[in-house]
Amino acid sequence: MRRNDVRDMLARGEAAVVAWMSTDSPYLAEVLSYCGYDAVTVDLQHGMFDVGRAIQLLQAVSSGPAVPLARCSGLDPAQIGKLLDGGAYGIICPGVDTAEQAAAFVRACRYPPRGARSFGPSRGLLYGGSDYVDHADDTVLTWAMIESKDGLANLDAILATPGLDGVFVGPNDLALSLGERPGTLPLSEKVTAAMSEIATAARAAERWAGAFAPDADLARRLIDSGYQFVAPGNDVSVLRQAAAQRIAVARGGSGAAAKDSAVRDLPGSSGY
Amino acid sequence: MRRNDVRDMLARGEAAVVAWMSTDSPYLAEVLSYCGYDAVTVDLQHGMFDVGRAIQLLQAVSSGPAVPLARCSGLDPAQIGKLLDGGAYGIICPGVDTAEQAAAFVRACRYPPRGARSFGPSRGLLYGGSDYVDHADDTVLTWAMIESKDGLANLDAILATPGLDGVFVGPNDLALSLGERPGTLPLSEKVTAAMSEIATAARAAERWAGAFAPDADLARRLIDSGYQFVAPGNDVSVLRQAAAQRIAVARGGSGAAAKDSAVRDLPGSSGY
Amino acid sequence: MRRNDVRDMLARGEAAVVAWMSTDSPYLAEVLSYCGYDAVTVDLQHGMFDVGRAIQLLQAVSSGPAVPLARCSGLDPAQIGKLLDGGAYGIICPGVDTAEQAAAFVRACRYPPRGARSFGPSRGLLYGGSDYVDHADDTVLTWAMIESKDGLANLDAILATPGLDGVFVGPNDLALSLGERPGTLPLSEKVTAAMSEIATAARAAERWAGAFAPDADLARRLIDSGYQFVAPGNDVSVLRQAAAQRIAVARGGSGAAAKDSAVRDLPGSSGY
Amino acid sequence: MRRNDVRDMLARGEAAVVAWMSTDSPYLAEVLSYCGYDAVTVDLQHGMFDVGRAIQLLQAVSSGPAVPLARCSGLDPAQIGKLLDGGAYGIICPGVDTAEQAAAFVRACRYPPRGARSFGPSRGLLYGGSDYVDHADDTVLTWAMIESKDGLANLDAILATPGLDGVFVGPNDLALSLGERPGTLPLSEKVTAAMSEIATAARAAERWAGAFAPDADLARRLIDSGYQFVAPGNDVSVLRQAAAQRIAVARGGSGAAAKDSAVRDLPGSSGY
Amino acid sequence: MRRNDVRDMLARGEAAVVAWMSTDSPYLAEVLSYCGYDAVTVDLQHGMFDVGRAIQLLQAVSSGPAVPLARCSGLDPAQIGKLLDGGAYGIICPGVDTAEQAAAFVRACRYPPRGARSFGPSRGLLYGGSDYVDHADDTVLTWAMIESKDGLANLDAILATPGLDGVFVGPNDLALSLGERPGTLPLSEKVTAAMSEIATAARAAERWAGAFAPDADLARRLIDSGYQFVAPGNDVSVLRQAAAQRIAVARGGSGAAAKDSAVRDLPGSSGY
Amino acid sequence: MRRNDVRDMLARGEAAVVAWMSTDSPYLAEVLSYCGYDAVTVDLQHGMFDVGRAIQLLQAVSSGPAVPLARCSGLDPAQIGKLLDGGAYGIICPGVDTAEQAAAFVRACRYPPRGARSFGPSRGLLYGGSDYVDHADDTVLTWAMIESKDGLANLDAILATPGLDGVFVGPNDLALSLGERPGTLPLSEKVTAAMSEIATAARAAERWAGAFAPDADLARRLIDSGYQFVAPGNDVSVLRQAAAQRIAVARGGSGAAAKDSAVRDLPGSSGY
Repeated sequence: MRRNDVRDMLARGEAAVVAWMSTDSPYLAEVLSYCGYDAVTVDLQHGMFDVGRAIQLLQAVSSGPAVPLARCSGLDPAQIGKLLDGGAYGIICPGVDTAEQAAAFVRACRYPPRGARSFGPSRGLLYGGSDYVDHADDTVLTWAMIESKDGLANLDAILATPGLDGVFVGPNDLALSLGERPGTLPLSEKVTAAMSEIATAARAAERWAGAFAPDADLARRLIDSGYQFVAPGNDVSVLRQAAAQRIAVARGGSGAAAKDSAVRDLPGSSGY
Repeated sequence: MRRNDVRDMLARGEAAVVAWMSTDSPYLAEVLSYCGYDAVTVDLQHGMFDVGRAIQLLQAVSSGPAVPLARCSGLDPAQIGKLLDGGAYGIICPGVDTAEQAAAFVRACRYPPRGARSFGPSRGLLYGGSDYVDHADDTVLTWAMIESKDGLANLDAILATPGLDGVFVGPNDLALSLGERPGTLPLSEKVTAAMSEIATAARAAERWAGAFAPDADLARRLIDSGYQFVAPGNDVSVLRQAAAQRIAVARGGSGAAAKDSAVRDLPGSSGY
Repeated sequence: MRRNDVRDMLARGEAAVVAWMSTDSPYLAEVLSYCGYDAVTVDLQHGMFDVGRAIQLLQAVSSGPAVPLARCSGLDPAQIGKLLDGGAYGIICPGVDTAEQAAAFVRACRYPPRGARSFGPSRGLLYGGSDYVDHADDTVLTWAMIESKDGLANLDAILATPGLDGVFVGPNDLALSLGERPGTLPLSEKVTAAMSEIATAARAAERWAGAFAPDADLARRLIDSGYQFVAPGNDVSVLRQAAAQRIAVARGGSGAAAKDSAVRDLPGSSGY
Repeated sequence: MRRNDVRDMLARGEAAVVAWMSTDSPYLAEVLSYCGYDAVTVDLQHGMFDVGRAIQLLQAVSSGPAVPLARCSGLDPAQIGKLLDGGAYGIICPGVDTAEQAAAFVRACRYPPRGARSFGPSRGLLYGGSDYVDHADDTVLTWAMIESKDGLANLDAILATPGLDGVFVGPNDLALSLGERPGTLPLSEKVTAAMSEIATAARAAERWAGAFAPDADLARRLIDSGYQFVAPGNDVSVLRQAAAQRIAVARGGSGAAAKDSAVRDLPGSSGY
Repeated sequence: MRRNDVRDMLARGEAAVVAWMSTDSPYLAEVLSYCGYDAVTVDLQHGMFDVGRAIQLLQAVSSGPAVPLARCSGLDPAQIGKLLDGGAYGIICPGVDTAEQAAAFVRACRYPPRGARSFGPSRGLLYGGSDYVDHADDTVLTWAMIESKDGLANLDAILATPGLDGVFVGPNDLALSLGERPGTLPLSEKVTAAMSEIATAARAAERWAGAFAPDADLARRLIDSGYQFVAPGNDVSVLRQAAAQRIAVARGGSGAAAKDSAVRDLPGSSGY
Repeated sequence: MRRNDVRDMLARGEAAVVAWMSTDSPYLAEVLSYCGYDAVTVDLQHGMFDVGRAIQLLQAVSSGPAVPLARCSGLDPAQIGKLLDGGAYGIICPGVDTAEQAAAFVRACRYPPRGARSFGPSRGLLYGGSDYVDHADDTVLTWAMIESKDGLANLDAILATPGLDGVFVGPNDLALSLGERPGTLPLSEKVTAAMSEIATAARAAERWAGAFAPDADLARRLIDSGYQFVAPGNDVSVLRQAAAQRIAVARGGSGAAAKDSAVRDLPGSSGY
């Protein structure tokens, strides 16, 4: 079976830098795969497409060097199975608040006897190879998202779930859950403290920590603090900020000022 | 944030006339938005498309003056969240039979602390504006569908749900649940009586009442009886009846007779 | 090979009433096929879709009783061949102004030795049957559109084209070419006179005459005057007028008044 | 209402041979419908498409002679309702392990009072006819998949579910659940014994038995042993094996050898 | 009819900054429309989509504030007509080398008697308004691309074409035609001189000059030198350069260095 | 730039076995790429999809090992340019009857000064690499189809076209042009003789010869007689024949007999 380069990086202690895709363009998916990212995450939760299109995006990612990953829209075993059958080499599951949910998530990602995934790895077999069934359980990455007070409270139990590879933080939903306004930078003290705690607990449990980072500087700081899997913005926020700068320069103004105002004007896309 | 014109109409005591879309054509969605309807409801439950296409339909509606709304296919928080992220300014949820379901539905539509909606309002942010997160909870309309004996029995409890804006009646499912054949006009006494009761209870609970109406005369009567949100047929039933008339006239026959037979021949599309 | 019901009707001297499709919904195509129309014309010229989608529309029409037809976007043999391969049982070609163009159009529709159509009738073979190649040339209808002064001037030469089955009038482009405003009803004297002349010439040349008719009454009059193939409005104009009536009635107004204003407000869709 | 030819075959004691579709091509769906299969099953579980595309595939099947069926991706009433509204004349539900699940599955397929299906049979009404609502419950086939140890343990209770028409075996998931490697031929003794037991129990309970069969010889043997509904491979496995043979012959080698190696190399597609 | 804001800007002597879209995502089209660009050009020539999808992109642009424009894939009147019917408020035509081609291009964009555009402005009528036909010829912008030695040689004759609004320079094809390597920055002396000459000639002929500019600084300089319509990069080049910077920063490197190498590595997208 | 494996095979004197794709499924395109074929040809002429979908098919092919090729729908430089920009590593152009057409075809495939291809190799740059522009002209294969009496008559002149890599025979259109029925096997003496002549002439002119072959045995014989590029059936004919065999075996009949009748019943798909 084709190896999972991101898993190998993580195992070597390196950090993966990941694209986050919310648009429904297979061409753009391929562009992102060739951009230098280690992986491209197709986002079913807040992305503007559905699982049928997601499979085409995974195909497009697969034609470049990045590893194809997906965030499912929720803890839905049928959708998770389909994304895996569609060749995703890892699933990021939003809203995992309890150990029971973490176990159900892992069960959806693993074949019996480890889990309850149904057999039929359509294009997974093409991308992975004819011995897919023998190695899929050890290849596919499973990330549970910690993004609520409940998730924080149950962190250790979630981290103890057999078969779970890591936890992934959504700073905006976490902020909302902690009673703060999402989409603001720099991250609040509460969120920062929680993220630090998560990284520490993950390491203690021999799990990896990942996070969405609204900008690249924060992504860098997260990596420095132990996060090994970071997404520095999504496709739209990256493009929108860069477009704002170009427009400003073309109009004879300052690109740097435009960059800041783009962040202010686009809280939703700047991070989740 | 862009205001919700339908919410404003309802608050002023006016009645909104709403298109109901079951076809998967973005162009037709835009046509309906320019037709004079106050809103266009993209129907995920009985419409012949999925949530990916629904987002394109919401885009198309947004390029005209009507307010974009959606009926979800069921009480599925992941789908509801995606429709809201896709710019829907209201959700109509089918099959709400209990107060617990009503509360779960509202929770899916509101951000913490009022609910559990996840943050990431992709094109909602474009359509709504950069302060989307601050006003979404007060802008998005939440309609619970009453369409069963259980729903009727629990009507008052459902209406008491905090954050629920209104109840919406599906006369056909209601008829089926009451032991009658769906798709017949005029509505039976039982259905008529139930719908009258619902409007009264809604008003008493300071909630709005809405309904699907198989034809325009019934829509008028419903408005006269207190319904403030009515859909006089869906796209297919409107087109099919009109086409039958045109064909009859072109063939040298009577358009009026054709109109009646079209209603008889198309019970499924004439109302749900 | 499956017979062409519309050709049979025309041969028996009957008139076919035809749907005209400008939206890109396969479901709506199937609805139109079951509506009572004799045929559904998928309009590549002014319809909001491309030839890939047109093939799906032709499939959808084929699952109902109406005959699948297409208007190509121009005199493009590659596109015409693809529509025929896609199962269209007739092609309506816009802007045929000369006998040379008429001959080129017919050549694109017929196999050698009668024409130059390339062999590979993909789904045409499914819809038509395994003896498709033996009968296609006698089954597929070829309509040249007369819609300009040049077309009128060359009418007799066009009608004399071997293999051409009929001429089809686009009243709006004809009006524009004659120096008048398109989209107005009743048709002007000039257009009416030209259309009368065309029917007469067609009959004399043993060809059929067809036309787009902005409304059903005009469709009836055209049939009475010798037209055997009429499209009483397109999908959008039919729906838009009917929706305007329903909205008016629901708002407590007059449906008849709404119908007239819808015609005034939508000149583009009311006829071409 | 249009009769269900597969149900009629089963009632006469005949066996239906069924195509299994995992690709997202409406044209291919129509090809399969014209290939000689009694039905075409659109596979939402392991197929590489979503429910929106599934509806277009059902349309395409409907334009040929085969009966349109669907496997849902899971026990999801909203999706099942949509597939039925989309014209599916039968649903195959994966992973039915208990009698409660079987009852929930049947409930999703039947209108009140027999079940809880919502009324709005969009294109079902086109394909089925205007009396759809009166006969749908007796027309639509309901197949519960038995593919786990739990399913086997609860087999009699599942078979006793009122309104359930039959059980369908997925040999690969069954093998996995029984602790064996999936995708191998010949089937193991354990799986063979279980499948024999299922057919016997089904007959005793006056239910039909069906199965996915990785190759045609096994399909034949299953029919001989009482299975009346078999799918001899899916679209991809049929094509892939045939392509391997053609390539081998074109390269001057042996088609027969290629056929065997194609089976070995494609365990995932060779059967589920 | 809705005014063309870009035409109004040009008429006032202002410069328009334009997005250039090569990806097939309606959501991204809407993002670009809300980004601050004055217009979004949907690129049919080198964009990875077709005219059917282009119409959905134009819809998406229309739901934001930017003006929807299109580059056609060639001098194809059928495609140009369809883009205009789809609501494009301007067409940029590649490869206009002669005055005859310029005249044919204008003819495709204007109704009789000024041109030969066919009447049927489907969604153009929605976006433009019910008086579309009366004002379209004075609203829609027509840009002929000068991108070859022949085009330069015939520049004055092309500029003299009645109904042509402006000329648009593609620096890469121009470089190729002048015997130089495309995709390099800074532009060569030959290309720079030619572009200067084009702006001067355009002004003399009372036409506007526009150009694709691989980066924002060049866009600024072009505006300073008389260009009033510039596209500072396309969607992919903007995103790719910005992503390279973010990845570099996240990996602990320098964003500025990454920006330069992204330009070197992506000559094709950096300008045409 | 990524090498063209098929060109390298041809240069080494080996024969390439090529898949021919007429269905619109990206997943199936990827399956074919992994099947063992040396290349997959996406057929725009008789395939049931358009150029937008073709690009997604090329992407899907690119994610497997086969070389992505395309047959254009006609001699249309805009479409050819788009397919090349979309990453096609070779174009097969139908209906090349004269040396002028052959030259125009080559011109559409090569950059100046060798041709007139416009610069903007969107995903070609991703698939090919950042030095695409420097090597594309020597990498992309150009095949002119000889499929008419005229093409035969002008064979030597066509073969002499600078930049043309080979000629490709469509036996069915050739049969039609020679006055015979297409779709029959074995090929007639006339067609066989013409194909032999073409191979000889091609070799003499130092060009490669290729052909569509309705079955694998003929493909083998063509290779033995000097053809180095053969397509043994298209996706639909391969699948349909194999399905007929499986169905027959499942029904207790003979697969071999079914195979023959499938060929008889499907003349259109059995070869072009």
